[in-house]
Amino acid sequence: MTLPSTRFAALPAGVVEADQSVTHPRGFRAAGIHAGVKKKYRDLGLLHSERPCVSAAVFTTNAAAAAPVRLTRGSSHCDRLRAVVVNSGNANACTGKGGLGDAAQMRRVAADALALQPEEVAVASTGIIGVPLPIAKIAVGIDKAAKRLAASGGPDFAAAIRTTDRTAKEGAFTLELPAGEVRVGLAAKGAGMISPAMATMLCFLTTDATFPPAAVGDLLRRVVDATFNRVTVDGQQSTNDTVLLLANGASGIEVAGPDLEVFEEALRAALLGLAVALVADGEGSTKTVRLRVEGAWDEPEAERVARAVADSPLVKAAFFGGDPNWGRVMQATGQVIDGAGGAGLRAEVAYEGISVVRQGEGVDLARGERRRLRDAMQGSEIDVLLALQRGECTATVYFSDLTYDYVTVNSEYN
Amino acid sequence: MTLPSTRFAALPAGVVEADQSVTHPRGFRAAGIHAGVKKKYRDLGLLHSERPCVSAAVFTTNAAAAAPVRLTRGSSHCDRLRAVVVNSGNANACTGKGGLGDAAQMRRVAADALALQPEEVAVASTGIIGVPLPIAKIAVGIDKAAKRLAASGGPDFAAAIRTTDRTAKEGAFTLELPAGEVRVGLAAKGAGMISPAMATMLCFLTTDATFPPAAVGDLLRRVVDATFNRVTVDGQQSTNDTVLLLANGASGIEVAGPDLEVFEEALRAALLGLAVALVADGEGSTKTVRLRVEGAWDEPEAERVARAVADSPLVKAAFFGGDPNWGRVMQATGQVIDGAGGAGLRAEVAYEGISVVRQGEGVDLARGERRRLRDAMQGSEIDVLLALQRGECTATVYFSDLTYDYVTVNSEYN
Repeated sequence: MTLPSTRFAALPAGVVEADQSVTHPRGFRAAGIHAGVKKKYRDLGLLHSERPCVSAAVFTTNAAAAAPVRLTRGSSHCDRLRAVVVNSGNANACTGKGGLGDAAQMRRVAADALALQPEEVAVASTGIIGVPLPIAKIAVGIDKAAKRLAASGGPDFAAAIRTTDRTAKEGAFTLELPAGEVRVGLAAKGAGMISPAMATMLCFLTTDATFPPAAVGDLLRRVVDATFNRVTVDGQQSTNDTVLLLANGASGIEVAGPDLEVFEEALRAALLGLAVALVADGEGSTKTVRLRVEGAWDEPEAERVARAVADSPLVKAAFFGGDPNWGRVMQATGQVIDGAGGAGLRAEVAYEGISVVRQGEGVDLARGERRRLRDAMQGSEIDVLLALQRGECTATVYFSDLTYDYVTVNSEYN
Repeated sequence: MTLPSTRFAALPAGVVEADQSVTHPRGFRAAGIHAGVKKKYRDLGLLHSERPCVSAAVFTTNAAAAAPVRLTRGSSHCDRLRAVVVNSGNANACTGKGGLGDAAQMRRVAADALALQPEEVAVASTGIIGVPLPIAKIAVGIDKAAKRLAASGGPDFAAAIRTTDRTAKEGAFTLELPAGEVRVGLAAKGAGMISPAMATMLCFLTTDATFPPAAVGDLLRRVVDATFNRVTVDGQQSTNDTVLLLANGASGIEVAGPDLEVFEEALRAALLGLAVALVADGEGSTKTVRLRVEGAWDEPEAERVARAVADSPLVKAAFFGGDPNWGRVMQATGQVIDGAGGAGLRAEVAYEGISVVRQGEGVDLARGERRRLRDAMQGSEIDVLLALQRGECTATVYFSDLTYDYVTVNSEYN
């Protein structure tokens, strides 16, 4: 697959896309098979590096974190992971001690099949909450997947991690650095519970570059903060979110110094494309909105306002209806900023560059502008600027609209 | 009208309901007429006390507070109001200096018609945001309403403050105190943007009791905190919320000391009934849920968890679908409490007394229990207990489900 495209993210120069996934980088093999957790479709993925890796992980901060997250976060060597085993169809969350035991067994079976230490294997699960994992089926599936590991197996792996996703979120690219060529592969899944501070979102990143071990954790944290932590479908944070980066150095190139910035820029652009694709494929989503908050008093205020607007069901329903309802943007903003001395909000609001609020008051648009605005609201990607005029701080979030299909997916799933 | 009824609130002994509204207490007159802000239906209400009052007010804390809120909060004598003028159909919010001028004119015209000082008149508006108030129509309407003021005008007043409300939220009662009989009248409106810390919610309370002036503000704050600030439809706080209490003493009885507690209990029960009716009539609402959070570490945690669950679109959509989806309750809870040392959530969850989660794990229900649970989820009022087992603090909120009609009302309003 090529990476999802969006006007909100462009790959920098020097990036050449490849029609592949997590096995585009040299030295990685993967498989995705049907183990029987779901009735049909692939539901078990295995990813393996032939050589040791430097690695990093970012997990959900939800206190009800699922067993695989608690296991991997707590007892794996997240800085030198070499394999990942993932199932879809069952989250192994709110499953108590039994669930932790199941996650540990999943890890042990994968480690045995790959001749690794259990601590070198990350475990991830996604799917329904509160149902015991069918561990016997999964154990058989892991052995089956291990036999099918292949350097062409990335797309099968990406397919196996999907749940209610309607579109693929994967891709691969080659990046030309002064030191030579390195490759990167990406596979993600999203849909429901996509929210900043992570989502029911899994993302696995591979590269045949390597990094100074101290650099890779910070690199992953920064790109996740700038991408997956900037998107929201319904403000809900999942119990299972996991992002992993495995760098096996098979290219012979260590990325450091100025090259690290070039690599980070390319990775950030690719992940932003994936993150926006997660929003666009959010449950029931028909529109993706980029909201840029400017002129906030401080960083927390910028963040608070961006999230209040992005997660307001009134704002989201108005986008679904194609209405530039700036009153709801103002109301959501007013809810989370300090009283402003009773003077009211002096904010400016613009949709697709068309100014609709100035100094806190609605702008009386000419007929041509009204028509332009109405047309712009029909687009699938809409850009909104909210300038608070209170300070210098900014925040950007990407969010989806609230639709009938969101209600359907989340109420009629039985 | 009699007060809305709910199993979540019962009027205490000694309360006798009356089929009236804000003019049940002696010495109040009211009117509600059509001034032309809306195409049809009453849209202008006037309420007047023949005698001076002690009074109190609670307003929205939204920084984008509407002009009438800013005017009344800023320059009226909120401790000795004697009249209220309200329009529906237009919120006079985000209307800048012109809007403040319109609110002031609305107050002046009402004061002139009633031979009061402007500072004795409270102004309230509800309706669409960002459109200038049709002040000429309103001024004519105020004069018309002043001529129709009547001791039987409470129900017309209550009708004039409604917007998308499908049901009336008004009532009246007589309370027998040792010192004699006092009367109370109530009129409220709600529907969209109902959220704690107030709502697009207006509520006007009248009584012919009087109070020590120092007591009335605290009394109103306490009953509002225990009622209107406990309900949420969509987590959104309006720009116009206002609760007013006018006490004119026409009964000759000053309520103080132990009587104050009796009065407060009755008022709280009546307001809780109104508040639950606001939720039940929330936009698109088909179910009202009472969520009691117990065993939180501290008060803010109890509050945070209650609101996170009540405002989770996933939880709300599951209630619409009739599914006791406790996984979503756990996920929303985990999102706002501290990591709990990675040990996971040991919470207990019960729907209508049926325990579905113990020690953080799903309970394997017997067939009869499953049937009882399924039936309970079909009710229009559902009781949920969430015991966190982390401490001693509690919080209760009342919320509605997320439905197709919510999306319709908020996306197809044009």
